[in-house]
Amino acid sequence: MRDKQFYMHHALELARLTIGQTRPNPSVGAVVVKDGRVVGTGTHMTAGEPHAEVFALQQAGEQARGAEIYVTLEPCAHYGKTPPCSKAIIDYGIKKVYVATLDPNPKVAGKGVEWIRSEGIDVEVGVLEEEAQEINKMFFYYMKTRKPYITLKTAVSLDGKMTANSGDSKWITSDQSRLDVHLNRHRHDAILVGSETVLRDDPLLTTRLPHGGINPTRIVLDTHLSIPLEAKLLSNPDAKTIVVCGKHADTTKEEAINQINHVQVWRLESERVELAALLERMAEEQLMSLYVEGGSTIHSAFIQHQLFNEIHLYMAPKLIGGAMSKAFYNQFGFEEVKDSIHVEFDSIEQIGKDIKIIAKPQVEEG
Amino acid sequence: MRDKQFYMHHALELARLTIGQTRPNPSVGAVVVKDGRVVGTGTHMTAGEPHAEVFALQQAGEQARGAEIYVTLEPCAHYGKTPPCSKAIIDYGIKKVYVATLDPNPKVAGKGVEWIRSEGIDVEVGVLEEEAQEINKMFFYYMKTRKPYITLKTAVSLDGKMTANSGDSKWITSDQSRLDVHLNRHRHDAILVGSETVLRDDPLLTTRLPHGGINPTRIVLDTHLSIPLEAKLLSNPDAKTIVVCGKHADTTKEEAINQINHVQVWRLESERVELAALLERMAEEQLMSLYVEGGSTIHSAFIQHQLFNEIHLYMAPKLIGGAMSKAFYNQFGFEEVKDSIHVEFDSIEQIGKDIKIIAKPQVEEG
Repeated sequence: MRDKQFYMHHALELARLTIGQTRPNPSVGAVVVKDGRVVGTGTHMTAGEPHAEVFALQQAGEQARGAEIYVTLEPCAHYGKTPPCSKAIIDYGIKKVYVATLDPNPKVAGKGVEWIRSEGIDVEVGVLEEEAQEINKMFFYYMKTRKPYITLKTAVSLDGKMTANSGDSKWITSDQSRLDVHLNRHRHDAILVGSETVLRDDPLLTTRLPHGGINPTRIVLDTHLSIPLEAKLLSNPDAKTIVVCGKHADTTKEEAINQINHVQVWRLESERVELAALLERMAEEQLMSLYVEGGSTIHSAFIQHQLFNEIHLYMAPKLIGGAMSKAFYNQFGFEEVKDSIHVEFDSIEQIGKDIKIIAKPQVEEG
Repeated sequence: MRDKQFYMHHALELARLTIGQTRPNPSVGAVVVKDGRVVGTGTHMTAGEPHAEVFALQQAGEQARGAEIYVTLEPCAHYGKTPPCSKAIIDYGIKKVYVATLDPNPKVAGKGVEWIRSEGIDVEVGVLEEEAQEINKMFFYYMKTRKPYITLKTAVSLDGKMTANSGDSKWITSDQSRLDVHLNRHRHDAILVGSETVLRDDPLLTTRLPHGGINPTRIVLDTHLSIPLEAKLLSNPDAKTIVVCGKHADTTKEEAINQINHVQVWRLESERVELAALLERMAEEQLMSLYVEGGSTIHSAFIQHQLFNEIHLYMAPKLIGGAMSKAFYNQFGFEEVKDSIHVEFDSIEQIGKDIKIIAKPQVEEG
């Protein structure tokens, strides 16, 4: 049936198309409907360019007068890089506005809906709200908490190993799983590894999808600035790189690194890299989401401090064995099972020959 | 549609009802159909009692004359504990026989079908054959290879740990997963642990399902006969127990253990317990399937020798961490990922809050 859910569903599909490419803006879709006919569709493509509503209204033109508009996120009410969408909706003569969810951004947060209503236009909020929030889950989390949304990604064998005895990890999972990892790089603002991973694997950490993709900002935790200037993260300019060090790191090395155009050193005030301080700095710089690809040590640190929103576990149908091989959460650990950190399985799917498991922090009961 | 698959499907459902309770016989169901009406159904219940066909034919009585019979396994042709079913089918005047699969038992293996056909009765073999073989997969494997069908069962946390740092493992998984484990005990002829597990946990290893269940024969690998006479496996008479030791084990202890009515010592000819020798002895004693619940050491031994038909991994939504905690395949292990043992994921399901993953040895390609 062509009810409000029908049109909103299609507006959400438009938003989904652009997940990852609108940073720091959320992904938004809009559909204009007049007398049961779709007369305009719009998607926000890139920060700085017009919002979804504007494209949809422009396409509708004169037909927008007396029409309905379906928007996946509350229209903005502030003058930013573009004029406010609420004003455009009023100016085009829209009669009714369906909004999937309010904008959590304090600059908007109900003001858009208020403005439109003050002009006597009917606004209904909450059509397919959960789906809309899921599409921009990282944006919502950041706006509400001022903390980056953190995804821990690990690839393990059936027996829970990240590496073989030699430290070798190429490749535990299949091509299909690795493509899924690249899609997640595209969807996150930043990607993080430890200096150990750089020293051992010298990764690029760029997004390599068949049709291209957006590179996340690359972050290396490197307390003593130990990674060489020749490391790909420092020599390859395809994405920004941030090297995070402790307060005692060598200043000459810091200067040398800072000379590189796409690279920046973040010197923290603590001796070692404190995750909380790093995340605070990230939030200040509008890095809203973080994809952690580090090894066992890095994962252990995030898990121990319960700093994660999602755990993505790719499990390959292999048995590696070995007491020397690394499991993804090897440090610290609990004396008894009852003290362990409880999570919830959110989804399980087969990706090629592998399994992908998504776990989230346990929702408090009661 | 009430075609041959329809009736065979119901015969298979009758067989499924009795998986685990017909040892050493397979589970078999039978349905007799006359002019589109079901006139008899039968299930083999317990070794020594009549076979499925006999129950179904007895119920059909005079109506069996000129009827069709659907049997999930080829009717037997030999005089065992009961007269051959092939003879009963002939005597009752059945007109057409549908058989899901031939019996892999060399005593039957086509002889039943041959005999019935020799009496001019039409026999069709292969209706829902795969399903029928799956129901008795352990029986088929044993009959074809003369080796027990081996299932390795492990419960781990999301980060692949079988225990916390202290060795504690109570309880990683939920009640629902543990019920599924008891169902699998019911379905296997024997259950195996190492002496370490007996010394640490002193388990009963019986089947405890809400409506009861059949206890598997309990097998302990105990090279030096180190488990105490007070261990539940030795003091509890609810199931047979076999203690497997090496050739140098203490003979006084052996005699003491053998005094216990339900317990038997198997002394192998090797210094340590050789799995191949154990499995051969099991096969001789018609123990067709083995459920391995051992810890990391036991699993490593089975995996290293690639002695498994299924791996059942129950994964709980918990993070235990710890370098001291045990992963389920910790011994030996490979230097590089490419040398690892490859398996295939057969199924993934959610059981309560946990995930159950079934993996099988990789089928050779080409």
